[in-house]
Amino acid sequence: MAKATGLWLVGARGSVATTAITGLLALRANLVEPVGCVTARPELAHELFPGWTELVVGGHDIAHQPLAKRAEQLADAGVLPHRIVPAIADDLRAVSAEIRHGYHPAEAHEPAAAAIDRMAADIARFQHSHDLEQVVVVNVSSTEAPFPELPEHDDLAALDAALRDPARTVLPPSSVAAYAAVRAGCAYVEFTPSLGIRVPALRALAERSGLPYAGADGKTGETLLRTALAPMFTERALRVRSWAGTNLLGGGDGATLADAEQVRGKLASKGRGLAALLGEEVTAPLHIDNVPELGEQKTAWDHVSVEGFLGTQLTLQFTWNGYDSALAAPLILDLTRLVTAARRAGERGALGALGFFFKDPLGSTEHRLAEQARELADWIGGLHAEGAQG
Amino acid sequence: MAKATGLWLVGARGSVATTAITGLLALRANLVEPVGCVTARPELAHELFPGWTELVVGGHDIAHQPLAKRAEQLADAGVLPHRIVPAIADDLRAVSAEIRHGYHPAEAHEPAAAAIDRMAADIARFQHSHDLEQVVVVNVSSTEAPFPELPEHDDLAALDAALRDPARTVLPPSSVAAYAAVRAGCAYVEFTPSLGIRVPALRALAERSGLPYAGADGKTGETLLRTALAPMFTERALRVRSWAGTNLLGGGDGATLADAEQVRGKLASKGRGLAALLGEEVTAPLHIDNVPELGEQKTAWDHVSVEGFLGTQLTLQFTWNGYDSALAAPLILDLTRLVTAARRAGERGALGALGFFFKDPLGSTEHRLAEQARELADWIGGLHAEGAQG
Amino acid sequence: MAKATGLWLVGARGSVATTAITGLLALRANLVEPVGCVTARPELAHELFPGWTELVVGGHDIAHQPLAKRAEQLADAGVLPHRIVPAIADDLRAVSAEIRHGYHPAEAHEPAAAAIDRMAADIARFQHSHDLEQVVVVNVSSTEAPFPELPEHDDLAALDAALRDPARTVLPPSSVAAYAAVRAGCAYVEFTPSLGIRVPALRALAERSGLPYAGADGKTGETLLRTALAPMFTERALRVRSWAGTNLLGGGDGATLADAEQVRGKLASKGRGLAALLGEEVTAPLHIDNVPELGEQKTAWDHVSVEGFLGTQLTLQFTWNGYDSALAAPLILDLTRLVTAARRAGERGALGALGFFFKDPLGSTEHRLAEQARELADWIGGLHAEGAQG
Amino acid sequence: MAKATGLWLVGARGSVATTAITGLLALRANLVEPVGCVTARPELAHELFPGWTELVVGGHDIAHQPLAKRAEQLADAGVLPHRIVPAIADDLRAVSAEIRHGYHPAEAHEPAAAAIDRMAADIARFQHSHDLEQVVVVNVSSTEAPFPELPEHDDLAALDAALRDPARTVLPPSSVAAYAAVRAGCAYVEFTPSLGIRVPALRALAERSGLPYAGADGKTGETLLRTALAPMFTERALRVRSWAGTNLLGGGDGATLADAEQVRGKLASKGRGLAALLGEEVTAPLHIDNVPELGEQKTAWDHVSVEGFLGTQLTLQFTWNGYDSALAAPLILDLTRLVTAARRAGERGALGALGFFFKDPLGSTEHRLAEQARELADWIGGLHAEGAQG
Repeated sequence: MAKATGLWLVGARGSVATTAITGLLALRANLVEPVGCVTARPELAHELFPGWTELVVGGHDIAHQPLAKRAEQLADAGVLPHRIVPAIADDLRAVSAEIRHGYHPAEAHEPAAAAIDRMAADIARFQHSHDLEQVVVVNVSSTEAPFPELPEHDDLAALDAALRDPARTVLPPSSVAAYAAVRAGCAYVEFTPSLGIRVPALRALAERSGLPYAGADGKTGETLLRTALAPMFTERALRVRSWAGTNLLGGGDGATLADAEQVRGKLASKGRGLAALLGEEVTAPLHIDNVPELGEQKTAWDHVSVEGFLGTQLTLQFTWNGYDSALAAPLILDLTRLVTAARRAGERGALGALGFFFKDPLGSTEHRLAEQARELADWIGGLHAEGAQG
Repeated sequence: MAKATGLWLVGARGSVATTAITGLLALRANLVEPVGCVTARPELAHELFPGWTELVVGGHDIAHQPLAKRAEQLADAGVLPHRIVPAIADDLRAVSAEIRHGYHPAEAHEPAAAAIDRMAADIARFQHSHDLEQVVVVNVSSTEAPFPELPEHDDLAALDAALRDPARTVLPPSSVAAYAAVRAGCAYVEFTPSLGIRVPALRALAERSGLPYAGADGKTGETLLRTALAPMFTERALRVRSWAGTNLLGGGDGATLADAEQVRGKLASKGRGLAALLGEEVTAPLHIDNVPELGEQKTAWDHVSVEGFLGTQLTLQFTWNGYDSALAAPLILDLTRLVTAARRAGERGALGALGFFFKDPLGSTEHRLAEQARELADWIGGLHAEGAQG
Repeated sequence: MAKATGLWLVGARGSVATTAITGLLALRANLVEPVGCVTARPELAHELFPGWTELVVGGHDIAHQPLAKRAEQLADAGVLPHRIVPAIADDLRAVSAEIRHGYHPAEAHEPAAAAIDRMAADIARFQHSHDLEQVVVVNVSSTEAPFPELPEHDDLAALDAALRDPARTVLPPSSVAAYAAVRAGCAYVEFTPSLGIRVPALRALAERSGLPYAGADGKTGETLLRTALAPMFTERALRVRSWAGTNLLGGGDGATLADAEQVRGKLASKGRGLAALLGEEVTAPLHIDNVPELGEQKTAWDHVSVEGFLGTQLTLQFTWNGYDSALAAPLILDLTRLVTAARRAGERGALGALGFFFKDPLGSTEHRLAEQARELADWIGGLHAEGAQG
Repeated sequence: MAKATGLWLVGARGSVATTAITGLLALRANLVEPVGCVTARPELAHELFPGWTELVVGGHDIAHQPLAKRAEQLADAGVLPHRIVPAIADDLRAVSAEIRHGYHPAEAHEPAAAAIDRMAADIARFQHSHDLEQVVVVNVSSTEAPFPELPEHDDLAALDAALRDPARTVLPPSSVAAYAAVRAGCAYVEFTPSLGIRVPALRALAERSGLPYAGADGKTGETLLRTALAPMFTERALRVRSWAGTNLLGGGDGATLADAEQVRGKLASKGRGLAALLGEEVTAPLHIDNVPELGEQKTAWDHVSVEGFLGTQLTLQFTWNGYDSALAAPLILDLTRLVTAARRAGERGALGALGFFFKDPLGSTEHRLAEQARELADWIGGLHAEGAQG
């Protein structure tokens, strides 16, 4: 039997991570069906995907709340069914015990270089103690404010030197986590709009180390719909004139994104995609509002004004409502399985074929959802275990 | 220079036809850009498509209102820009003069067989007098009530005999028109949900006669969106639980479809598509309401309830508002160009690759819009003039 | 201390009743605040209103499921907070024990006259055993199909004779319940669109017996909004051209109303109100669809087309989403308190001032919500205990 | 016969003014019905209201485009019916000839004091040349950025001194216009959120001069709906938790309000009203976006999250779409008639009873639309010509 795979979550006690973990444990216990898991579609089944029972979870977080407690809160908020949490309480406690203290510059008593060493060691210990074939590191921690490009980002030696200087902050926490992952010999998935592995020197290092990576910024709501709908207009030769959007978020994400600084990264990522889809810039005001009263829900309203035949106006409005964490969580499990399979098949560097999952796909310029779905299916179809290929 | 192509519209004085004709004349006069015309996308350009100046229009209708008058009404209703109608008034009059009296059983003073002869002769005369390479017949007349299947529909000889019997009505007007088209050696496009060419004996006759045909029921609004959105849910492994829709229509179409009998055909066509897209039947109440106060506008509201990860609920609502005729008209021009090219390339029978344009595609079981767009592009890419292939 | 008041629910094991009972018990236990209870607004406080602890609940139902079981189902469906049901389980059992078998012609082994006697005796026994000052009977059972007007409805003697004839059905179950209420000397509230007390002979009997009554058809969703919004258009001299509505309902009510027969009563009641509000008939297609997948939720979409200055078009669309039972339940408690106070103040006959709560107000032609709110406040302000007035 | 009344528009060549003028001329010519004119409702008819033929229009503007040209543009944009403009072209030219050059500090070659003198003289000349009983000045010019409170605002002598100092800007253009109005002995209406007459020294001067005034910030869209809907929640004891809004505006207003500075006034005015309506502050993010592609249309989307019985969630969303100028214009005519009547009846100071028309009513704290409608009707009912009262 194959060795198990590790899933190492950065931000492991947050809403998305807790939902993903609870879901995995519930799937393993046959308490639920894998609705929302793309890799569970019969059409996409592949022998290189690890099974639900072949995944072991650990992670980093700077918070310390037990997972079971967080899961209960999520059940009260409607994200998880009440019946599930008690049924997997023991397993939740076991995962909670695998979560190590993370890194945040505000509380750091160590230079970043030391944090990277410490975190890489955490992951390596986790891999060793569970005898794992490999570990996939997935960042689901809070969205960071955009981080400036620095000259050190292009040169690993210069970067390493700067990281040892306690007076400087040359990488945000997401990139510290990404570096730790690569250092530990792990594939990395950037599920947030944060910088993460998108530092040239880190990307190059991953590539040289034979490691695949994927990202960025999981596509779970408004953007998912936009990438399904915008091609419709283009293919019908209709001219989108404006595409306005408002997002109402409760939960921690709402609070984070209400901060004008942090939200810039998210908005920039969304804007890039829309222009790419439509082939031109259009008027596209976009807002993300923190509405704590909505709890874990998010609601998006989009208003699209379109020029049709002979200059007539078409208008499309949509409202999308769901639980943010429940939209993201199954994709975490999918990405873990897909990246595991990619590495088994010897893939390295940016996995552009996983653009289907992301607002800002690394390794791909394709934003159209249907095309991404096809590329994903083709890519899966072409996967072969590395040894088998030789 | 190539000979011109004829576009023969059944229902040539209706809103859709008038908008298509006005649009064609405005395109020819460089008064507007071809927004909404799929075949005008640079990616799809093909030498076998006739140019805007290479199309000559005629048609059948049982109404007698001059096209220019109808165009003015449509301008007042917001469907056409006011500035265009005076600029092409002469051309409108010329097209109006090419419209012959149509066929409706309620006013028929002739057996259907005689009507077919008469209408085929009208088309042949039109082709001859304009020295046209070919004529494409497109049905845009009012939606008919579903017509029962009859044994005669499977046997041309039996059908012909029954059509000569003035006491029987074995074909609805759309099929009478389709028969006349085939008799006149013309390709046929069924743009409405009416029976049209979907009579086995007529389809066989078209095939034997080397004629291509396409249909049915132009996809211009709610269904267009559904075929863009439903695959999104499927590809993300989300389970659609219910998909409710309400359509508010003014204009003639609203009045026609308000009739409980007539609407059955439309609703059935929409329902088949949704089940095909989702892979299963879901609760999908659907209404078409006549709201004359909306003029030429149509508004659709859809409410989709979806099961996500761990049983959580997602909800998508959309509202689509546009001018029905302006949505349909450019597709009429596209279909004329595409069917012309198909015949030039020697295609015969149902053109499944044109399913992109239809709610109920003949010759195809594919309903996913993006897949249809790809099939269309591939098919266009593979077209070669018949002689050139040899 | 004042004697307690009885609340006798017809349909006492249904969703609305269960929610009202659970809510009352939770209010009594100080587990929740009286959000949604109009009579709990400080502005409307009145000494004649019984307190939450001064209400005792019983009722009739033809179903036998224990209330606690039903409450758990409603908690799973999101209507009730999970934490409440266990906290009031004993009280729920106590109320459940006060529910007697109801009446339905399909299962009746007795003529209606006998059912009326039996049910009136049930109520009287309930009143006596709890030493209640009075009992208010509220019908929250399933909506009935419209019942034809009969000559016997105008004449109590003729009605009584017909009710004794086992071969005839001259009253629907709601009216049987209303008759039983009046026979037992109780005020009656018709919360559904069913006939209930709206039988002339019964209304006259209630009046003669010094009993107040109120109804009909609780205003909880789409109609609530319509009666708030329609006056806005009228007061601004804007002309509503069309007002289309679609209601999606899960739960038992959805199934009941999906029946084309039953829904007629509901639609008629809604239509009357709209015409009254706008001062004229407008195009107003209206649908109620059963969508079981929505559980206890109901969603209404309304599309209003309005003519403004110089013939310009305004469009208002709204979507309303909520839990049907949670919208209705607090009004049941309000009506019980208000009708109790009315009787204490010596009011008899139709309580038009309670029109605020109803789609089809008895004793009033006012449909404008704000006016109804004012009338209600004025009426409450004018209430005095009967003895105190003398 | 009564002398005519003057309507003097500040911003007389803008969209709102042009639409109001065109509408008045069309009403006078019996080309349209007074849809949208509150004072034309039969219930509110009053002999002190001037008739449509008894109003003479002039105004100030810093733009010079002829009204007829602007009206044609508005017809192309859908705000005015095409048929009307040619029919009243002569009258439009006559009004256009009555528009004098306005005041803007950016182009001022005069101290503000001189501008006030000049503008007051313009109005006086207009009144004299048309032999008008009185002139009502209405500000419909572009929204200004919030203007700081200054000590001079409380003291007329100090204000006058500062206005003569060319180095200082102590009043925004709207207040310069308001001062000119009062100087000329005219009633003043502030239809925008700008400061206008809301300078204590100017208010006091108007009061001392026996002049009525009204404002501020016409209530035409989102806020109109909010003031109709918010009382519904309050009266039903439902607790609004959040009320988010997004406004998409094309036209000049969109461009003006897209400026972060200018929009602050508008947003502040909207926010004050909502808190007043709900009795408490709620989370209420609000955006105004400039979407030039929408032309003269404005679209508002509101999302309201409400706590109902037992903590259940209700959600109301609405979308409002209309032509901004067509919503505002009839109110300009109404306010002119009402203020004329007020002065005839001897009213002076802030006309709180006109709060029905404003987001930020002067002289009133009532925001509930239905209450405002009632106050307006009562106030109209109580108006008597001043002489007649003695």
